[in-house]
Amino acid sequence: MTQSIEWLGDRLRFIDQSLLPLEERYNETDDCNVVAEAIRSLKIRGAPLIGIAAAYALALAAAGRAEKDPRAFHAFLLKTAEFLASTRPTAVNLQWALQRLLGRISPETPADEAKRILAEEAIAIHREDSAMCRRIGENGAALLENNSTVITHCNTGALATGGEGTALAVITTAHRTGKSIKVYADETRPLFQGSRLTAWELMKAGIDVTVITDSTAAALMKNERITCVITGADRIASNGDAANKIGTYALAVAARYHEIPMYIAAPSSTIDASIKDGNGIPIEERSPEEVTSIHGYRTAPTGARVYAPAFDVTPAQLITAIVTEKGIYRGPYAFTEEKVRERVELR
Amino acid sequence: MTQSIEWLGDRLRFIDQSLLPLEERYNETDDCNVVAEAIRSLKIRGAPLIGIAAAYALALAAAGRAEKDPRAFHAFLLKTAEFLASTRPTAVNLQWALQRLLGRISPETPADEAKRILAEEAIAIHREDSAMCRRIGENGAALLENNSTVITHCNTGALATGGEGTALAVITTAHRTGKSIKVYADETRPLFQGSRLTAWELMKAGIDVTVITDSTAAALMKNERITCVITGADRIASNGDAANKIGTYALAVAARYHEIPMYIAAPSSTIDASIKDGNGIPIEERSPEEVTSIHGYRTAPTGARVYAPAFDVTPAQLITAIVTEKGIYRGPYAFTEEKVRERVELR
Repeated sequence: MTQSIEWLGDRLRFIDQSLLPLEERYNETDDCNVVAEAIRSLKIRGAPLIGIAAAYALALAAAGRAEKDPRAFHAFLLKTAEFLASTRPTAVNLQWALQRLLGRISPETPADEAKRILAEEAIAIHREDSAMCRRIGENGAALLENNSTVITHCNTGALATGGEGTALAVITTAHRTGKSIKVYADETRPLFQGSRLTAWELMKAGIDVTVITDSTAAALMKNERITCVITGADRIASNGDAANKIGTYALAVAARYHEIPMYIAAPSSTIDASIKDGNGIPIEERSPEEVTSIHGYRTAPTGARVYAPAFDVTPAQLITAIVTEKGIYRGPYAFTEEKVRERVELR
Repeated sequence: MTQSIEWLGDRLRFIDQSLLPLEERYNETDDCNVVAEAIRSLKIRGAPLIGIAAAYALALAAAGRAEKDPRAFHAFLLKTAEFLASTRPTAVNLQWALQRLLGRISPETPADEAKRILAEEAIAIHREDSAMCRRIGENGAALLENNSTVITHCNTGALATGGEGTALAVITTAHRTGKSIKVYADETRPLFQGSRLTAWELMKAGIDVTVITDSTAAALMKNERITCVITGADRIASNGDAANKIGTYALAVAARYHEIPMYIAAPSSTIDASIKDGNGIPIEERSPEEVTSIHGYRTAPTGARVYAPAFDVTPAQLITAIVTEKGIYRGPYAFTEEKVRERVELR
């Protein structure tokens, strides 16, 4: 399994996903700003991995700070966390991980103790994520029968998480238990996470994967026996509405039209029970350049207007089941703060 | 309006669409093989334009042939037409145009007379196509009210035809008659005909156009007031099933789910009444490289399996109306050989 991120005690090692599949390059840094830039520029991506990376980044910022006064040190950490949170506004894991670190310290915590606590907590988040991935894979694999043909979108594997992945862990776990699984990977415009990353991971894992353009998926559902669609999620509202990579909603609509189950697999930290429904989920709009320029090659006229939302929201009624590390949920969904808080017990 | 193809008496001038929108370069040739290569490599593309170009190519091949014996000359033309027909197997206009030229001559026709006849017939096809576009635009414009917001796919404009286009002519005609039309252009993977060509044409025409990735369309239908979807077609079966650029079916499914009308605009030469339904339409599969390599930049691992159909088939029941130069048809469709043959009367 690919190790997408690794804590080396005083610095962070991570694979630069923006270079895949052409080059497998790892970066090492002890600089919080380098990690923030990596998150913003999608060198580090995938909702769970972003949370882990941001947690390590806050620990790095703390470790590198000479300040001794606890209150000033704490104020610095709050400001740094705010800065880190701004790198990807839609990803709730980012906010969640940072809040969890900050919850372990106070303005009275001595600086050296805070440094140790933040590093420990970041490591704990990473370990838990890896355990969560394993459980998501085990829970979700029950949904896949032998000889399944699955369509997936974006990347939700080891590259997106601190473990084996979410939606992709469902597939790799089913494969490992001897089931024959064929995967169609949406290339996932504009950034090709599906063709660049998912195809790369699945080929490495020896799983039968075929790349398609995003708009081929509906035609496949008509012409082939597709067993189900599985994707991850970046944020899930309490009613089960799920924000995920742009194109997920199109898949969900096509799956419903063809009476194919649509599954979402995500850690429970993705659930934001404070949000009633999808309307409350902020949708990050990315730069038009991501659509109109591919590695320097322009695909649209200069000055062309572009609408480039990074995510869309799939309403709960189109989601057959939501798989988390705790189990399989089916609609009508009603995620409460209590349910989400339960995850602390998993530590 | 862009002149995508022009007959110069002894040679053909055409815009190299594979270079747009970066460069507006025109090629001139008297070589049938150059035109065939241009069709195969999508320098010349768009179902109607392919037919016109193939007709001119056959006329060029005839003009350049020194052979005097009528039978040998005729045999050469049959062979050349077969070669030209093989460049894009799905496009029925290609076959239709070549058959029409061949139908004007016989093994007894003197070579010099055949040369003249073929050139005249190619010019006639071009003129008729231009007239057809005008009528398609006029017929279809009635479907668009003022302040419409339209999603379109691929390119169906002046670059795709010998005139103003098909689906795009509907939009440009409505715009010209004073209606305010906002267009979302699917970029249209894998070859970006939407972002490269449609956006370029509409911007030139002063029409409000916004580029989106293909999988954004469904989300737009949920979040914005989309009036309708309009696309072209490459082949229409007698029951109304329509083959068009891959992704059209996904749009049709999403449009149905959101109760948005789905229109197809195409010349009646696109209708192949000899085919009962969509199952009889051959679907060209293009090279995997078109998906995995963009201007030399690889978007998938080396050796990745790819499924890259060039077209999909939208069943008639998802098509609200089919617009041709003869009028607006609504389902249930029943196109007969007689109906299609009527087009000859338009000459």
